[in-house]
Amino acid sequence: MRVGLAQINPIVGDLEGNACQILECAQDVDLLVTSELALCGYPPRDLLLDRSFVEKTARALDNLAEKLPPQMTVLVGTVTPAPLGYGKRLWNSAVCLQKGEISHVFAKHLLPNYDVFDEQRYFRSGTELNIFTLVLQDKTIAIGVTICEDLWNDSELFHPLYDHNPVAELAQQPIDLLVNLSASPFTIEKQQVRERILQHHAQKYNLPIVYVNQVGGNDDLIFDGNSIICNRRGEIVARARAFTKDLLIGDFDLEKRDFSSAAIANYQEPIESEVWQALVLGVRDYAYKCGFKQAVLGLSGGIDSALVATIAVEALGRDQVFGVLMPSPYSSPNSISDAQELARNLGIKTTTIPIENLMTSYDRALKPIFADKPADVTEENLQSRIRGTLLMALSNKFGYLLLSTGNKSELAVGYCTLYGDMNGGLAVIGDVPKTLVYRLCHWLNRSVSFPFCHLVPGTIVPAQILTKAPSAELKPNQTDQDSLPPYDILDDILFHYIDRHYGKTEIIKLGYDPQLVDRVLQLVQRSEFKRRQAPPTLKISDRAFGTGWRMPIAIVSRHNN
Amino acid sequence: MRVGLAQINPIVGDLEGNACQILECAQDVDLLVTSELALCGYPPRDLLLDRSFVEKTARALDNLAEKLPPQMTVLVGTVTPAPLGYGKRLWNSAVCLQKGEISHVFAKHLLPNYDVFDEQRYFRSGTELNIFTLVLQDKTIAIGVTICEDLWNDSELFHPLYDHNPVAELAQQPIDLLVNLSASPFTIEKQQVRERILQHHAQKYNLPIVYVNQVGGNDDLIFDGNSIICNRRGEIVARARAFTKDLLIGDFDLEKRDFSSAAIANYQEPIESEVWQALVLGVRDYAYKCGFKQAVLGLSGGIDSALVATIAVEALGRDQVFGVLMPSPYSSPNSISDAQELARNLGIKTTTIPIENLMTSYDRALKPIFADKPADVTEENLQSRIRGTLLMALSNKFGYLLLSTGNKSELAVGYCTLYGDMNGGLAVIGDVPKTLVYRLCHWLNRSVSFPFCHLVPGTIVPAQILTKAPSAELKPNQTDQDSLPPYDILDDILFHYIDRHYGKTEIIKLGYDPQLVDRVLQLVQRSEFKRRQAPPTLKISDRAFGTGWRMPIAIVSRHNN
Repeated sequence: MRVGLAQINPIVGDLEGNACQILECAQDVDLLVTSELALCGYPPRDLLLDRSFVEKTARALDNLAEKLPPQMTVLVGTVTPAPLGYGKRLWNSAVCLQKGEISHVFAKHLLPNYDVFDEQRYFRSGTELNIFTLVLQDKTIAIGVTICEDLWNDSELFHPLYDHNPVAELAQQPIDLLVNLSASPFTIEKQQVRERILQHHAQKYNLPIVYVNQVGGNDDLIFDGNSIICNRRGEIVARARAFTKDLLIGDFDLEKRDFSSAAIANYQEPIESEVWQALVLGVRDYAYKCGFKQAVLGLSGGIDSALVATIAVEALGRDQVFGVLMPSPYSSPNSISDAQELARNLGIKTTTIPIENLMTSYDRALKPIFADKPADVTEENLQSRIRGTLLMALSNKFGYLLLSTGNKSELAVGYCTLYGDMNGGLAVIGDVPKTLVYRLCHWLNRSVSFPFCHLVPGTIVPAQILTKAPSAELKPNQTDQDSLPPYDILDDILFHYIDRHYGKTEIIKLGYDPQLVDRVLQLVQRSEFKRRQAPPTLKISDRAFGTGWRMPIAIVSRHNN
Repeated sequence: MRVGLAQINPIVGDLEGNACQILECAQDVDLLVTSELALCGYPPRDLLLDRSFVEKTARALDNLAEKLPPQMTVLVGTVTPAPLGYGKRLWNSAVCLQKGEISHVFAKHLLPNYDVFDEQRYFRSGTELNIFTLVLQDKTIAIGVTICEDLWNDSELFHPLYDHNPVAELAQQPIDLLVNLSASPFTIEKQQVRERILQHHAQKYNLPIVYVNQVGGNDDLIFDGNSIICNRRGEIVARARAFTKDLLIGDFDLEKRDFSSAAIANYQEPIESEVWQALVLGVRDYAYKCGFKQAVLGLSGGIDSALVATIAVEALGRDQVFGVLMPSPYSSPNSISDAQELARNLGIKTTTIPIENLMTSYDRALKPIFADKPADVTEENLQSRIRGTLLMALSNKFGYLLLSTGNKSELAVGYCTLYGDMNGGLAVIGDVPKTLVYRLCHWLNRSVSFPFCHLVPGTIVPAQILTKAPSAELKPNQTDQDSLPPYDILDDILFHYIDRHYGKTEIIKLGYDPQLVDRVLQLVQRSEFKRRQAPPTLKISDRAFGTGWRMPIAIVSRHNN
């Protein structure tokens, strides 16, 4: 039996286009399996609350069923109406199409409702055993069907969030193969976790597993593909490509009731490499799916904009990326030359718009009101907002997607200007801590000849950008470390607070100065109003600012004191 | 038995302050009942994922228990750790305090996970029957305890979202009184719905009910109070004040096992009046809870800024509100005089900052790049962004809260400028459709002597603001209706699409032009990227843009074609 894993890159809401992608995968296999909600794209979010959207999805499924080869069995991830009764009105389903018709509807049992996931907002849990049989060459194969989270409630591996384990229940039946339709977003080293879980299940239940993951960027979420075939012994025997569409085919031996291929190596990829690929895909797909061909960004001569420019070039092509230098009287001469050198290395066009005249115009306009008030953060923010406004003017006039360049450390402590450098359609590195920004740039300079890279070989990020002290350059001789702790300390405190849910006391126990910890946590809480208005942030960590970070703004943060 | 309903206005995260508010209500009653999660404030959102926050809440509860009068029984809404076992690790609880100690912990059964509610993100459902008994004057009173949503799963009233009905189960036991701790956000005419449900339950089960709602604004949500005592016959016998803190006390007759007071009138309040009070409270509490005393806003001479200025004056006092006029060459002379007349009516200070010089400075800065490209929406947006930047400069320099003035109709179709007029800490009327903006202003002019109003008696909104054609005044002779349908049509289409989840076909069946409907829905979808970066929007409708509106951005909206 030939099993196809259709690792497609759906656009949310693009029912026809997604159906076409599924059809393209319907080649020369007996069983084709898509990713979760492949027909409508994951995550459809509140589109699901529009009744007509659900109806249109049903029609698109019927059309797809008619067009598929009649002898092929296809499991399509889609939304279906739940039967009458209590609870939400939809199922997150794997629909089995055979001979032009719907033969089975299998509903997802376990609905994740944490981090970026809101599935209990839309869906009702399935309660039936999801099993069907295929007859090929006079042999009957029983297949158990699971959807994403259904695999993730094994109490040997995790704190169980749900009252039952669909895998264990299916494994009690005489099934020959377990399939899983997933939409599992990328996070750093997530693939290793996925493969451990699959291997655990395969060994524990003596079952081969087909795991199909979505690929592509959808707003803040990046899906990395990496679909897997795992044999009965818990060996990975095939893996689809990472960060790109793929059709992976496995040969299931009807006698042995297992995949016949030999084991391949476990997944291993340097963190820098997988983060780089994720961010490139995230930018490429956000631009493509929103209808942008070209991007613009401010080049400050600093490391953050250097990294974002490089990602944008890889994602969109060097002719599609425009860098804007906007020097002020506080910009060091090096900032300008560093930005220009970076642009030369990348081969992108730049333009320079000095902002001193605009600063003067604002000062004049505000002088009657500000009178003799001393300069403060107001004037610093004005510079940032002038730049943000100029970039948006270019975005409006030429139809460029504006990429914002702030990193996670800045966004966490509010070291960024709302309506200024935070402007943009997408916060490309808003989930990348500053220390990882450095690691990525060093890695880029070493690795620019790696196979999937379209960059000019040679150094990308000029050495001086990597070595100079980070600075916002909004007043004379300013550096980030005037007001922030060193980034290795800051990032470690932030990691434990944000990603690991540590409280103040637990962080202090790691050996940090209590006053410093207090100050950092206060900064995080006090800048919530800025993050609430930030653009979507490409998620690469366990907890990114964005849809998975839901903090109140108007709070008394006394609980940290 | 004297029963106190502690309708407090908690600040999220302010454990000590909220405990103090509860203590202030602990006067001369036998049983005191707070609102839901009163100790930590509702909604605590992701603060609940910080383990140390939950621990601190437990300590605050212990402290509160010690300070309460020992003879008093107090039901406090708070978060408690759920026992070991599968599922989320927290309960949304009503903790019964007696004699300085915790005597019972009652867990909420039904956890809403729709609209703005994410309770299944944090909480595990309770499974036990929540009953306790009090002995007073040798009489035993059995009390059933429910929390908010526990009341809302009666299949005679709604499509049931949950598998059981805690009220029905409690009513099968010999209980004398049902209490409910709620945090039910205001929406238009919600109180009428609440009272119908209470009356339905009281009559159906022959049970008196005590319903305690939270009051106050927390970010986008406004809680209106309006706590209720309902007798066995389904009559409302007492109602706490709307939109303000209150301690309502009811006399429960131990012989009759019912409240002894006579029925009062059902709740009736004109929509304009309740929306006005809600928005005033929303602004007042957002400012107070974020630590702002003063607010600033742009006065365009249009009706939206007129309404927001009036709300701000009522919320913060006329000396605390600053209006900024920022005329451009496209501003009509009337706009300036209308804004000034409004400011005089309100008694607020204004300042005027013409923006023509700044427009020229931007044009000069951009001329080398824009060359001979014709003027388009870029130049319109620049005007809006200059104004937004000036307002933020005042906000930064003087510590003012910037109020944004866009209405729901504009926000829906994207008739607003990101980083321009959308700037602000709070979108005051972002959930008020334009047609309701007009109704509110007409009502204000008629009603300015109503008892809770601190405004100067007389006309507030000048007549010409109410009668002139709405215009953004971003190019010569522009009016909103150049590019939008009349607001009564637009608002009705938007209401059915947003609040009622109608699809395109269903809206067309209401009698609207298919092309128009198509265009409006496309505008809504294409402006999602703007709304994602909007400030928190005070919610007054069934579906506001904000935490209860979760739309993807990068979608193909072909499903509307």
